[in-house]
Amino acid sequence: MSDRQSFERLDAEDSLASVRDLFVVPDKVIYLDGNSLGALPRATPERVRALIEDEWGVSLIRSWNAHGWIQYPRKLGDKIASLVGARPGEVVAADSTSVNLFKLLAAALKLRPGRNVIVSEKENFPTDLYIAQGLTEMLGTHELRMVTRDELIESIDDDVAVVSLTHVDFRTGELHDMRELTRRAHESGALILWDLSHSAGALPVDLEDAQADFAVGCGYKYLNGGPGAPAYLYAAERHHDAMQPPLSGWMGHVAPFAFDTDYRPAPGIERQLCGTPSVMAMAALEVGLDILLDVDMDVVRKKSQRMGDAFIELVGEQCAGLGLSIACPTDSAARGSQVSFSHEAGYSIMQALVARGVIGDFRAPDVLRFGLTPLYLRHVDIWDAVAILKDVLVTESYLRPEFQKRQLVT
Amino acid sequence: MSDRQSFERLDAEDSLASVRDLFVVPDKVIYLDGNSLGALPRATPERVRALIEDEWGVSLIRSWNAHGWIQYPRKLGDKIASLVGARPGEVVAADSTSVNLFKLLAAALKLRPGRNVIVSEKENFPTDLYIAQGLTEMLGTHELRMVTRDELIESIDDDVAVVSLTHVDFRTGELHDMRELTRRAHESGALILWDLSHSAGALPVDLEDAQADFAVGCGYKYLNGGPGAPAYLYAAERHHDAMQPPLSGWMGHVAPFAFDTDYRPAPGIERQLCGTPSVMAMAALEVGLDILLDVDMDVVRKKSQRMGDAFIELVGEQCAGLGLSIACPTDSAARGSQVSFSHEAGYSIMQALVARGVIGDFRAPDVLRFGLTPLYLRHVDIWDAVAILKDVLVTESYLRPEFQKRQLVT
Repeated sequence: MSDRQSFERLDAEDSLASVRDLFVVPDKVIYLDGNSLGALPRATPERVRALIEDEWGVSLIRSWNAHGWIQYPRKLGDKIASLVGARPGEVVAADSTSVNLFKLLAAALKLRPGRNVIVSEKENFPTDLYIAQGLTEMLGTHELRMVTRDELIESIDDDVAVVSLTHVDFRTGELHDMRELTRRAHESGALILWDLSHSAGALPVDLEDAQADFAVGCGYKYLNGGPGAPAYLYAAERHHDAMQPPLSGWMGHVAPFAFDTDYRPAPGIERQLCGTPSVMAMAALEVGLDILLDVDMDVVRKKSQRMGDAFIELVGEQCAGLGLSIACPTDSAARGSQVSFSHEAGYSIMQALVARGVIGDFRAPDVLRFGLTPLYLRHVDIWDAVAILKDVLVTESYLRPEFQKRQLVT
Repeated sequence: MSDRQSFERLDAEDSLASVRDLFVVPDKVIYLDGNSLGALPRATPERVRALIEDEWGVSLIRSWNAHGWIQYPRKLGDKIASLVGARPGEVVAADSTSVNLFKLLAAALKLRPGRNVIVSEKENFPTDLYIAQGLTEMLGTHELRMVTRDELIESIDDDVAVVSLTHVDFRTGELHDMRELTRRAHESGALILWDLSHSAGALPVDLEDAQADFAVGCGYKYLNGGPGAPAYLYAAERHHDAMQPPLSGWMGHVAPFAFDTDYRPAPGIERQLCGTPSVMAMAALEVGLDILLDVDMDVVRKKSQRMGDAFIELVGEQCAGLGLSIACPTDSAARGSQVSFSHEAGYSIMQALVARGVIGDFRAPDVLRFGLTPLYLRHVDIWDAVAILKDVLVTESYLRPEFQKRQLVT
């Protein structure tokens, strides 16, 4: 695979090639950060314009019914459900990932009285840990047990109420075995919550098959919903009736417009709603979701794996001896839709790459992270990105040892 | 004042008349529901288009810095601060009103250990009650004491940690004396939280003068931020350092991009942030705020009071004997920016009004509510609205007693 032509051939044969045309991809940019903020779907500006001008501007308050605004959380939830192996009525789009984590962790603790531990990984995405810390701090009766990946299984003992994990590690891209870990949690009588922010829309997810209890995820990465898009949450139907929403806002009330004095939770997943969601943000998210619902997630996954393997192979060929270490699994089956490398001057290297139009991101302390988004990336983008990476490593003067030291101090 | 010409004269002399041109006001509509969803500012579509196409579409992830996205919560917070008598750094735009209520109530309880009661009014906006109910339910150590307006002062005893009130009653428009109630709460050693959803942007608010501890409010009513706009929260600076955020998400971390394992709250108001906000929604809210920052809130208040007085007076003249009872204070100094009337066929009457282009709203059990938004309402709108209301009351056959009964059953 080590010439550009072979990558062009892969693009010519790519059944997803035309999907790229549904996105705005700026000239002179190779965008390897769709796992931080997905690209703009071409249909989004017109959809949001119509929402603003033709719905809000004309129908005003009547739009909640006339234009179905009130249905958005559930309607988008059902669309997301089909991407993550959930059933209609098990997912809602709402709030942020962090807020949704809080709702589900708090509910999970109530479902397991007598157990006072939340288990999570030290390497989990920080907000997942922070939210658990805030919750346990607030309650004063529970603790967060943070363990390494290796200690995970043995840490799930009889004290554990809920295990909270991210499916794909945000730094290394390492993929957890959702089915096996869910089984181990259940075996110990614990519940499990999966953060799908780095997997939904990037690879097939099957929550029902895994028998997962809860999940959350974000709308602005692989779902291409726009900056700060609504997040989502999943709760398996078997838990719905017993779940007490700690954030019991009016949108989760059985009859929000009855203006009752007492909170009575809506049946089903709707009780997980809290306040009024941004309708603009919902409309934009729907455009991103509709693109995903039209593609085959197995095809997306295969292209992602192929691109990741090629990236790693090319770096091995082109950048040998230039100080990069691989920081993700080489086996594509164990890897999410990203590749990662570490380098002690990682921050500076990423700055240089971005200046040359190769946009990945840096994750402290030393990780260069490149997200792979098969919907709008071409195989030649991988070739070109690695060529530029090599060029940066070879030519940038600040990579000389004496300059590195200065960089690391600042 | 009882001819249309006198209302036209008021409009001709109105220094706010030109502000109406900054809004889209649909033809054949008299919009008296800006207290549910504010009208669309003319500048909003272009601002949101630019955000989507020129920022997200072109700069992608780099926009967080390049286009100042990361500053939105604080930047808009400072703008809101100037509308509610707070200082820069005491307000952030974030999440929904409900979520912000939860954050502040939970923090307030921690600030008053040994006190286990939240006091609120039975007639408070339901989500304010529901959130307090969910919080106390979750903690299991505190209770919500719901009292009538008359019982309020005597209910604030030594057990009370925090008093949670809405400044303007959502049904009746009745205005609380913020300064006096804050004083009474403090006298008992309690904290106080004000929901400004129905006051900020409609009348002058001075949180600092009142010595208020906390406040929340919504962006989509008088602030004209669009459906589900970001809400905001205020905390007096004196409390910042001691506040523990229960929703401790990464946006409230002292260094979100350090990806630390442990939550360390940001200094100041930023620790009240949780997850990633919708940037589109923030951009739209800013357009609404900028209009408000350009007008004199005392002038807005005076016009609102004049419109409300005229509405009540006209209803008295035109609709006498047609079954309406006044359901708001007649003294405009005691009233927010709305008028309310009750009628046992209120729901049907509002349906008929809406069908004729007079958009107010109905609030169970029997309240017809008309919001007054001086930025885009004319005095003649009040005249015309009451004329149509009279016509509905006189001519609609379903207002006959035998039909009313059928309506009330369905």
